[in-house]
Amino acid sequence: MGHRKSVIRCVGIGPGDEAHLTREALSAITSSNVIVGYKGYIKYIEHFIFDQKVISTGMTKELERARAAVDEALLGNKVCVVSSGDAGIYAMAGLILEVCNELGLGVERFGASQNGLDEDQDQQKPTIYFNCVPGVPAFVGAASLLGAPLMHDFCSISLSDLLTPWEVIEKRLRMAGEGDFVVALYNPRSKRRDWQLAKALQIIGDYRQGETPVGLVKRAMRPGESVSIHQLKDFPVESVDMESIVIVGNSSTFLVGPFMVTPRGYLTKYSLNK
Amino acid sequence: MGHRKSVIRCVGIGPGDEAHLTREALSAITSSNVIVGYKGYIKYIEHFIFDQKVISTGMTKELERARAAVDEALLGNKVCVVSSGDAGIYAMAGLILEVCNELGLGVERFGASQNGLDEDQDQQKPTIYFNCVPGVPAFVGAASLLGAPLMHDFCSISLSDLLTPWEVIEKRLRMAGEGDFVVALYNPRSKRRDWQLAKALQIIGDYRQGETPVGLVKRAMRPGESVSIHQLKDFPVESVDMESIVIVGNSSTFLVGPFMVTPRGYLTKYSLNK
Repeated sequence: MGHRKSVIRCVGIGPGDEAHLTREALSAITSSNVIVGYKGYIKYIEHFIFDQKVISTGMTKELERARAAVDEALLGNKVCVVSSGDAGIYAMAGLILEVCNELGLGVERFGASQNGLDEDQDQQKPTIYFNCVPGVPAFVGAASLLGAPLMHDFCSISLSDLLTPWEVIEKRLRMAGEGDFVVALYNPRSKRRDWQLAKALQIIGDYRQGETPVGLVKRAMRPGESVSIHQLKDFPVESVDMESIVIVGNSSTFLVGPFMVTPRGYLTKYSLNK
Repeated sequence: MGHRKSVIRCVGIGPGDEAHLTREALSAITSSNVIVGYKGYIKYIEHFIFDQKVISTGMTKELERARAAVDEALLGNKVCVVSSGDAGIYAMAGLILEVCNELGLGVERFGASQNGLDEDQDQQKPTIYFNCVPGVPAFVGAASLLGAPLMHDFCSISLSDLLTPWEVIEKRLRMAGEGDFVVALYNPRSKRRDWQLAKALQIIGDYRQGETPVGLVKRAMRPGESVSIHQLKDFPVESVDMESIVIVGNSSTFLVGPFMVTPRGYLTKYSLNK
């Protein structure tokens, strides 16, 4: 195990290219000596990779990547696990912690040793020093391109039923509809999961007008980006793919020029001195 | 009005200090000639202010700031409106668009002119070129310090009843509880709003075990930061202030070392090859 600390930092690189990367994320990437990530994301940071070892695997190989990150850290490496968007939203941070737990490893906060907390730990137990470097989440990047749809209470629901029973997802869609939340839909549609999105919009439609604005953002901040705003009653479900985020307005969301806006209520309560 | 375009860019500077600022946000700040923002946030970016005019006002002066931003833009300025966290989450982006709408101004997407869309607009109508530069939202910064609580479906609810009737907030809390969402609570408590948080936790508690982990983060990524994890049944409501974010786990959220984790289900479905 050596004397070097085992470090894993889960880093969100934000949506799209490096323009939306934070300085802290950049510093975590460049100061690591092993980088683990999905192939499709590594390309967005490849010019920040110098002598770091890179472990990249395909989609749906999350568990494999998490295990590799932990194994590399246990060799005394400083591992950076990159995710698109934020590292803790439908991404890798939770899985890394779960794997550490499953393997019976100690987990401490990376950075805590500077506070002298090192002495408290059980030296017999291999310990992973962990932290999460937040990034701009995909749905927040998408929302920014749509204008300001998230100005009031919102929720995020993934339509992927690979790991979550559809009944649970459906219940959440109902609650989101009834609670009049703005709703961001992750993983809205893929070749294999082709009926969920229409069903989801139908459920929300039980609680909302057909004219409710629904934003569709594909490949936010990436080559081929597209942004469009539709109505709940005739949303182009067929044009949605895995690289899309769908944002359904609440009962007050309206359009201003090419943008969606969900009001918070300032102009209802206070008058504008024209 | 002159020939210079009227530009407003709403910029999220992320939680805390410049480590969590994106490059695009930095570029929007430095390339503007007027900066508008709440006094408390301007200090986090003051070393990026060179010759830009600064208009800063106190808390609850959002409408005043939005109006000032629009007025400055109409003089032909490139205005940057800064918000902490993300610019479109309980922040300024929506209000700016609402004010433009209320004043009957044209609104176009900033950057669209490069695509030759300029010709389409009505030249008689003063037009604001708008965009939103996303930032790491406050609740995402807080979540990162707590570990990985947002790994599954979540919602965000503001407990401020200044602009939203309490019945609407209460309904959303119930739906969030019943839908088993992870819940991020914004504006959880202030000197004047001292009973809402306890009531909110009680409502969520109708649907969740008393042992459910609840994270409390104060001043995330700022001097005086504090991070602690409690249980729903004995959460220290009295210690919460306006600079706090509270994150309530869902029915599966558990602890790994000093962190909260909401599992997505990988380890239930797949076994870890130990």
